[in-house]
Amino acid sequence: MRILLHGCNGKMGQVLTRIISQMEDIKVVCGVDKNPEKFNNPYPVYDSLEKVKEKVDVLIDFSNHSALDSILKFGLDNKVPLVICTTGFSKEEKDKIKEASKNIPILNSANMSIGINLITKILNQIAPILYEDFDIEIIEKHHNQKLDSPSGTALMLADAINSSLNNKLEYVYGRHSKTDKRKKQELGIHAIRGGAIVGEHSVIFAGYGEVIEINHTALSRDVFAYGAIKGAKFIIGKEAGLYTMNDVI
Amino acid sequence: MRILLHGCNGKMGQVLTRIISQMEDIKVVCGVDKNPEKFNNPYPVYDSLEKVKEKVDVLIDFSNHSALDSILKFGLDNKVPLVICTTGFSKEEKDKIKEASKNIPILNSANMSIGINLITKILNQIAPILYEDFDIEIIEKHHNQKLDSPSGTALMLADAINSSLNNKLEYVYGRHSKTDKRKKQELGIHAIRGGAIVGEHSVIFAGYGEVIEINHTALSRDVFAYGAIKGAKFIIGKEAGLYTMNDVI
Amino acid sequence: MRILLHGCNGKMGQVLTRIISQMEDIKVVCGVDKNPEKFNNPYPVYDSLEKVKEKVDVLIDFSNHSALDSILKFGLDNKVPLVICTTGFSKEEKDKIKEASKNIPILNSANMSIGINLITKILNQIAPILYEDFDIEIIEKHHNQKLDSPSGTALMLADAINSSLNNKLEYVYGRHSKTDKRKKQELGIHAIRGGAIVGEHSVIFAGYGEVIEINHTALSRDVFAYGAIKGAKFIIGKEAGLYTMNDVI
Amino acid sequence: MRILLHGCNGKMGQVLTRIISQMEDIKVVCGVDKNPEKFNNPYPVYDSLEKVKEKVDVLIDFSNHSALDSILKFGLDNKVPLVICTTGFSKEEKDKIKEASKNIPILNSANMSIGINLITKILNQIAPILYEDFDIEIIEKHHNQKLDSPSGTALMLADAINSSLNNKLEYVYGRHSKTDKRKKQELGIHAIRGGAIVGEHSVIFAGYGEVIEINHTALSRDVFAYGAIKGAKFIIGKEAGLYTMNDVI
Repeated sequence: MRILLHGCNGKMGQVLTRIISQMEDIKVVCGVDKNPEKFNNPYPVYDSLEKVKEKVDVLIDFSNHSALDSILKFGLDNKVPLVICTTGFSKEEKDKIKEASKNIPILNSANMSIGINLITKILNQIAPILYEDFDIEIIEKHHNQKLDSPSGTALMLADAINSSLNNKLEYVYGRHSKTDKRKKQELGIHAIRGGAIVGEHSVIFAGYGEVIEINHTALSRDVFAYGAIKGAKFIIGKEAGLYTMNDVI
Repeated sequence: MRILLHGCNGKMGQVLTRIISQMEDIKVVCGVDKNPEKFNNPYPVYDSLEKVKEKVDVLIDFSNHSALDSILKFGLDNKVPLVICTTGFSKEEKDKIKEASKNIPILNSANMSIGINLITKILNQIAPILYEDFDIEIIEKHHNQKLDSPSGTALMLADAINSSLNNKLEYVYGRHSKTDKRKKQELGIHAIRGGAIVGEHSVIFAGYGEVIEINHTALSRDVFAYGAIKGAKFIIGKEAGLYTMNDVI
Repeated sequence: MRILLHGCNGKMGQVLTRIISQMEDIKVVCGVDKNPEKFNNPYPVYDSLEKVKEKVDVLIDFSNHSALDSILKFGLDNKVPLVICTTGFSKEEKDKIKEASKNIPILNSANMSIGINLITKILNQIAPILYEDFDIEIIEKHHNQKLDSPSGTALMLADAINSSLNNKLEYVYGRHSKTDKRKKQELGIHAIRGGAIVGEHSVIFAGYGEVIEINHTALSRDVFAYGAIKGAKFIIGKEAGLYTMNDVI
Repeated sequence: MRILLHGCNGKMGQVLTRIISQMEDIKVVCGVDKNPEKFNNPYPVYDSLEKVKEKVDVLIDFSNHSALDSILKFGLDNKVPLVICTTGFSKEEKDKIKEASKNIPILNSANMSIGINLITKILNQIAPILYEDFDIEIIEKHHNQKLDSPSGTALMLADAINSSLNNKLEYVYGRHSKTDKRKKQELGIHAIRGGAIVGEHSVIFAGYGEVIEINHTALSRDVFAYGAIKGAKFIIGKEAGLYTMNDVI
């Protein structure tokens, strides 16, 4: 598998570079980055997609939503499938991705981790079975530099549960009271912050005789790189269309 | 729902009695136990199924496998569905249950907990997806009076995983070595024993960038009573046949 | 050890009755309760302390703060040590306890669990060592019928930490923001509510390379009975004075 | 603080290099490594301690036990305190360290993590209090490339507990039986192996009404670097003698 790594000199680009260098049958043949000389990579790096001469099987993007146009153009012109791991797209940009996916296969997901995507699927399936007899709460833990709380992933998990229950749940972000019992339709979401915790998510189903917990721990940023590679393997050879990590797993 | 509680003066029979007494629309109308006067129950208790005069919708059994013949006879004679929560049946006894289930609906499960049965289902579904990239281990914790280790439930979870992987896993019950790396096909099963822990099971999928954990905690024996009641609600009105908790959830 | 059980027909009184009946060298010789005939206890039950004729080594109280005067009088008149497990005393009542403790040994603690009291001691000791490099957060989990949040025990743990740090911490009860990093002096306290969870408390010290967690799980109300019995064994033969569970462990 | 980093081009040497580069008031002024040109470090690297010309406040060693003689010589000749983070010393080598510590301050610990050392201290203190009423078990989790099980750190924790109990415990490394109850003097040690787990240790005290758990999670190898730096700050200016991390915290 010959990969074009777009955004190769960002944090995730470097993680991918390191991980792929230890793998067989898969290679970064060239990179593109606005700071092409920032790191000493074991492949040529260009400052623009237009300069790429190498033949590639897939493009993996960990850059920025503002580069979308050039990525889509590259994919369409060269019939190269795209794995877009960037987030923060506007409605208009999402429409552009959709449009392009009529002609080439494109994979785009908010969270590239296989585990989180698989858990989302499971939650959607079991929440309707358990809701009558179980109360649902989510705990997430992240490092103390994180700006947003709760995490986007915690909300993604909460939404997966809620959509399977006709959106009847009410998210609660902290309890501090002396007189209120929990209401049935509450879904408590708790954001713990501390030290250098990479990312942990725990979904709790608490019943009258038993408790079920589904936990996810990110050991390092590597998890997103592994997901992107799995996505790249999946998308090569697929028909044109818009895919998510849920199609991959 | 009118229940005949068979084995009403055993530990689980008393748990069911307490829980049902707090519920509406459901009632124990009579019990059967070999020690009919052991407790002061809020319903008549007979020492034999032959003496039961009440009309019932379902029989729940928490007695002993040796009472099987009388239970099946009662069910067949009176067209009463059976929820058999007893374990330890021989091959011959299992055949008798199967035979009887041609004429009446019968529910029989090794573990009546909704949570454990649901987790079994999930494991069967996700183990094949995760196995390539994740190592699987099981930890179970029980009180210090438990005789068998690992627990029957831990083995049930392990078997659910293994059967979904063409039984290629090798169960490992303890590691104590200075020179051996884990082999891919190992499934470590670890039995912690201490104090009065009711029962905890944890299935760990450990990957290269992430760890997924599915945990189950029994808060008390109540969990098995809730499962039996859910099973009873399910079985009433069903066609003749042999059902398990996996059909209920 | 001969025990007078005050409040013997309340929830905790019955737990103590059951647990002590399984122990050797320790016996409830009589009980006192305002509903003396509610249960069929294996010891005589009076409706007032004045009617007690039996000779006892210690009085254990799980009744109500309003019974304080009669308990103190009984203890002082008969030179009987007191284990008072009731909470909710006013300032005036606390003064009365203190006054009485000049003449007899009295044990009084907000939480009778050995584990929680031991953890409180440890936190007081390690928080000053860890604070510079670690962020501290507390998670507590309880059943969905609990009215107050966070739990009194969570606050007791938080106060143990805070008092060892010159009360410079600021308690935070929920995070829901898009733009704020955690501040160093925050101590997050998170109240999870669901099903029939008896009570769990987790204190997290999250650092830059490691995380330390101290967890406490109450398996059942038995924990408070065991603490009371340990307290009773401790107080017999002690000099007059006011003791807490921290003296016992 | 001016640091001489011995073994600067090993895994831990590079972790220290990265972490110190982000700190103020502390600097690696030179390194020594048998492969001096392996990495492009922001300080001069020599292939032998004899070539060092820089003035340093402390030497941190993450090399190999075989380099001990040269390190001790450097420390003694230049009156430089030593932080020796290497393990695997023979009895004879340990004696040499002891001898040298009569003239210079030396810090040597099997595990440089502050958390693990603090937990060891706590265990030593609480195990005698809890042992009568609680069963003790240890769970450790590591990546699937680890050769030895249980981990050296798990044994260090077990020994801290056992030595506080007059060494009456018996270590048990796996349970697989149908007929045996846990014996009081057992200390179960369970080694989970999977994926890329950096290192987790959990000490469980399971009682009849409550469970206490003390958990440690290494987020990354950074934890050992932070410990070494803390050790270096501590040792500068100390009197000659042999110190461990327990003196630091």
